[in-house]
Amino acid sequence: MGDNDGKVYRSELTPVDFLRRSAYMFPEHEAVVHGDRRYSYKELEERVNRLASRLRDSGLEKGDRVAFLCPNIPPMLEAHFALPAAGVVLVAINTRLGKDEVSYILEHSKSKMLFADKELEHLADDVDVEKILIHDTGEAGDPYEDYLAEGSPEPIPSVLEDEEEVISINYTSGTTGRPKGVMYTHRGAYLCALGNVIEAAMDYETKYLWTLPMFHCNGWTYPWAVTAIAATHVCLRKVEAPRIWSLFESESITHYCAAPTVQIGIVNADEAKKLDIHVRAMIAGAPPSPTLLSQLTELNIDPVHIYGLTETYGPITTSAPRKEWENLEMDERAALMARQGNAFVTSDLARVVDDDGNDIERGGETMGEIVMHGNMVMKGYLDNEEATEEAFEGGWYHSGDVALWHEDGYIEIRDRSKDVIVSGGENISTIEVEQAIARHDSVLEAAVVAIPDEKWGERPKAFVTLKKGKEATEEDIITFCKERIARYKAPAAVDFVDELPKTSTGKIQKFVLREKEWSGRESQVN
Amino acid sequence: MGDNDGKVYRSELTPVDFLRRSAYMFPEHEAVVHGDRRYSYKELEERVNRLASRLRDSGLEKGDRVAFLCPNIPPMLEAHFALPAAGVVLVAINTRLGKDEVSYILEHSKSKMLFADKELEHLADDVDVEKILIHDTGEAGDPYEDYLAEGSPEPIPSVLEDEEEVISINYTSGTTGRPKGVMYTHRGAYLCALGNVIEAAMDYETKYLWTLPMFHCNGWTYPWAVTAIAATHVCLRKVEAPRIWSLFESESITHYCAAPTVQIGIVNADEAKKLDIHVRAMIAGAPPSPTLLSQLTELNIDPVHIYGLTETYGPITTSAPRKEWENLEMDERAALMARQGNAFVTSDLARVVDDDGNDIERGGETMGEIVMHGNMVMKGYLDNEEATEEAFEGGWYHSGDVALWHEDGYIEIRDRSKDVIVSGGENISTIEVEQAIARHDSVLEAAVVAIPDEKWGERPKAFVTLKKGKEATEEDIITFCKERIARYKAPAAVDFVDELPKTSTGKIQKFVLREKEWSGRESQVN
Repeated sequence: MGDNDGKVYRSELTPVDFLRRSAYMFPEHEAVVHGDRRYSYKELEERVNRLASRLRDSGLEKGDRVAFLCPNIPPMLEAHFALPAAGVVLVAINTRLGKDEVSYILEHSKSKMLFADKELEHLADDVDVEKILIHDTGEAGDPYEDYLAEGSPEPIPSVLEDEEEVISINYTSGTTGRPKGVMYTHRGAYLCALGNVIEAAMDYETKYLWTLPMFHCNGWTYPWAVTAIAATHVCLRKVEAPRIWSLFESESITHYCAAPTVQIGIVNADEAKKLDIHVRAMIAGAPPSPTLLSQLTELNIDPVHIYGLTETYGPITTSAPRKEWENLEMDERAALMARQGNAFVTSDLARVVDDDGNDIERGGETMGEIVMHGNMVMKGYLDNEEATEEAFEGGWYHSGDVALWHEDGYIEIRDRSKDVIVSGGENISTIEVEQAIARHDSVLEAAVVAIPDEKWGERPKAFVTLKKGKEATEEDIITFCKERIARYKAPAAVDFVDELPKTSTGKIQKFVLREKEWSGRESQVN
Repeated sequence: MGDNDGKVYRSELTPVDFLRRSAYMFPEHEAVVHGDRRYSYKELEERVNRLASRLRDSGLEKGDRVAFLCPNIPPMLEAHFALPAAGVVLVAINTRLGKDEVSYILEHSKSKMLFADKELEHLADDVDVEKILIHDTGEAGDPYEDYLAEGSPEPIPSVLEDEEEVISINYTSGTTGRPKGVMYTHRGAYLCALGNVIEAAMDYETKYLWTLPMFHCNGWTYPWAVTAIAATHVCLRKVEAPRIWSLFESESITHYCAAPTVQIGIVNADEAKKLDIHVRAMIAGAPPSPTLLSQLTELNIDPVHIYGLTETYGPITTSAPRKEWENLEMDERAALMARQGNAFVTSDLARVVDDDGNDIERGGETMGEIVMHGNMVMKGYLDNEEATEEAFEGGWYHSGDVALWHEDGYIEIRDRSKDVIVSGGENISTIEVEQAIARHDSVLEAAVVAIPDEKWGERPKAFVTLKKGKEATEEDIITFCKERIARYKAPAAVDFVDELPKTSTGKIQKFVLREKEWSGRESQVN
C-alpha cells in the first residue's frame, strides 16, 4: 500500500502487504518453526515491525542498503519484510563465499549495515560497516534480539511511492569475473510470489521446509509466497538429510525446493522411506535426471521441474506434466518431465532464439538461446549499465542457456553457452551426456566438461561419484554411454571422485573441473 | 504484453495473456464444455483470435465498446478475451433486464455493436446498433459462427499501452435510479483473477461449472481466473438444479459459484445427494444462513463464503475458516463462517468506518460502513463523475453495506444501509432476523423488510417460503424468533409466499416487498 496519487483503485504492489494481511487474517496461525521456537503470524509481524522501526530510527534513508549474512533462520525471513517496510533494500549474501567476495559485495552494494550470524561473522571481520550479530537464540542477550527489543511492535508508515522501486539486490555467483548485483522490484517480487503460490499449488495449510537458501534469489521469492497464503515456514540451519527426513514427518511438510544435487542427497539418504503424505518438491538449478525423478516419485515426493536464473527471481518456467504422459513408462515419462518451457502464469512466454534474435525452428536439431521478458525479469544490474545493456540486448533478457525447442512447445536445456563442447565441429551437450551416465545403476552423480584433444579440438570427460557399495569401471561407463547416445558424445575419459565441486546452491562448478584439465593453456576453448 | 516504453522487466498486466499461455502450455487440454461441444485451449484461442481480428477489421477503434447479451455460452467466454485483445471494451448486459434497461445501457455505454443470443434478441429489437445474432449451434449458418469464420485464427498485435486502461463496463442492477456503468481495468481484472485462483484453490485439474452469470461482474473475473490455470469451463445455458446435479457427476465438477438463493435451490433439489468428490462452492451475494452452510457440507460441497460488490469486481474478501472452529457444533461453526472480512491476497484490507471515516470499535455493538481500497476496486462509474466522487469519498470506496466489526477481525454484514430497520430508535438488522427464521425446520427461505408502525416508526415483517411438505404458522415463526433474538427484533407479521422476488443474480429484491408495504406513502422511511 504505497503512495499512488490518491487513486482509490490502485495500491502499489509490494509483498510487505502479504504479511500485513496474513497477520490480520490468521494471527494465531503458525508462521515460523525453528527447532523449539515457534512464532505465530501475529508474533512474526511484531518482530518485523520492531526491526523495521528500529532500522528507520537508526538514520537510514530510503533506498539505503542493508546486508544479511545468515542461514535459513528467522531473522533472515524477518529481513524480507522489515527492510522493504522500512524502505531499505535487502542485500542477502551467499553464506559460502570467501572473505574477499563478501567484502566486494558489501562495498559494491554500499551496504550501510550488516546483520551476520555469529558462525559467519568471520567472513566480514575486517569490513568497516556497522554490524549486528545474530546468535540465533531468540532470547534476550542475543544482539539481534536486543536490537529488536529497541523497536516498536507497531507498523511504521510505508514510504513506497512506486512499485518499480528496488526491494532487494542479489549477487550472481560469478563463476567468471566479479559477481553482479541483480536488482529486484517490489512489483516483480509481488507477482513472482503469486506465481510461485499458483505453480507450486500452495494453500493456507501448506508447511514449507526451507531447504533452499534464502540468500539465493531471495529463496526464489518463497519468503513472500509462503507468507502470502499464511502458510508455515519451517526453518533449517543446515541442509542435512537426516534432519530433513525427521522434519518431513514431525512437521507434516507439504512443500520444499532444492537443486537436483540436494535432491539426490535426500533420496539416497539412509533415512529415506516412502512418505505417508505426498510432498511437493520444486526442482531447479539444473535439469533433474530421469533417475532422480523416478526415485522421488517412488518416495511419494511429487517433483515439479522448474527453471530460471538469478536474473528472473529464480524460477520463471515450469514443466507442466500432461495427462497423456501418465501411461508412459517411467523412464520415458521422466525424460519428458525433465524438459522445460511453460512460462509461469505471471510471466511472458519464454522463447528460444538464434544469434539474430529470431525464434529457432521448433522440432529442429539446432540449439538456440533461451530469452525472457516481462514482470519476472530483473530491473537490471546495480551500477553496471554495460552488463545490463548486454543482457537486455534486443529488448529481451538473454539467459545464456542453450536449448532445443520441441514441437509441443517444451524447451530442452542442453547447456550453459560456455559449457557446450565443440568436438570435430559438432556441438555436444554436456547435460545430455550426464543424463546418459546418470541412468547407470551404480552412478550417484556425474559432471561432464570439455577436455582438449589434438584431433577433435575438444572431447567430453566425465567426473563420476558412485552410490554407496556400488562399483563401475571407466570402460563400463563409456560402453554404457555408447549404447545410449551418439558414439562421439560418449566420454573420452572417466574420473571417479568422492565428491563433485559445488556452489552453495548445489550447482556443480564445472569451471573448477575444467580449469584442472586445461591448466597451463591460455584459453579453455580449443 | 502491452507497450511499456521498451522495459524488458515490465509487461502491462492483462488477462488476455492468460489465454495465450494456457493455449501454449496445454493446447489439447479441454477449455470449454457446452453440451456435446468441446473446445481445446488451442481451439478456444483460435476462436478468440478470429473474433478479435474480425472486430478490428470492422473499423472499431481502441476504446470503443461492444455489448454482449447472452447466457453462459461459449461466445460469452470468448468475448472476455477477444474484446480486450482487440482493444475494445466489453459491456456484458444482464439478460433478465427489460427492454428499457437494455436500451439505456446500450445508449449510455455508446456501444457500437451488440452480440445477442437469439432468445434475447427481442430485448434489443428496436435499438439502432449493429447486431450479430448467436444461435448457439457452434455450426456454420449460425451468424456468430459465420462472423468468426471471416476472422483470422492468428493472434493480432496488442494495442494495450497502459494496464489501467478499461477492459469492461458492468452496469449495477440499479434497484433505485438508473444503473451505473462500473469500469474495470486490465490490471484489476488480472490481479482479481489471480486472487480468485488462490482463494478458491483452483489448479490445472479444476473443472468449473458456470452457475454464476458471466454478465454479473464479468462472472466475478472467473472467465479469466479459470483460464489462467488452464482449467475447464463447463457452460450452462440455464441454472436448473437437475442439470447441475447431472453435470456435477458427468463432468467431475470441482468448483462453482452462486448466491445463497441459488445454493438453496441446489441443496433442496430432488437430485441432491452426497457427492463422491468434494466440490468447492464459492458463495456471495448475501450472507448464507447457518442452515445452508450445514446442508452444503453434508453433501460434500465445501462452502467458502466470500463477499463483494460490482464495484469490487465481485468478491474482495473471504471468510477464512480457522482451525480452532473445527471442534465446534455445526450451528456455532456455521455462524462464524457466515461472517466476512479477510481481504483477498490481491486486495488491501477492508475496514468498517463511522460517518467520519474512522474505524469503528472492534467487538462493539455499533455498526459502521464497510469501505475498500486498492487494486480490486473499480476505476469509477462511466461518465458519472458525481457518483464516482461520492463513492470514493475520503479516498476509500464506500460499499453502502452496514456491518459489525468483531474483535477477531471478522466483519459481520448486517444490512444494506437502506435496508436497516429503525424501530423505536433501535437499529434492527434484517439479516439477523432472516437468519433466525432460516433456522426453523420448515423454512426454505426468508426475507425481512421494514413496515410502517404508528408507535415504533418501523417494525420488521417477514416473507417466508416453506420447504416441500412442511408447515408453519405466523405465530410459530414469531415465537421461534423471540426465543432466539431480542423480542423487539422478532417480526411483527409473517406472510407465507410461494416465491420471493429476486434479481437475476439471485439477490432478493427487498425493495419490491417494501414497496407493497409502503404503497400510498411518500417516503419509505418512517
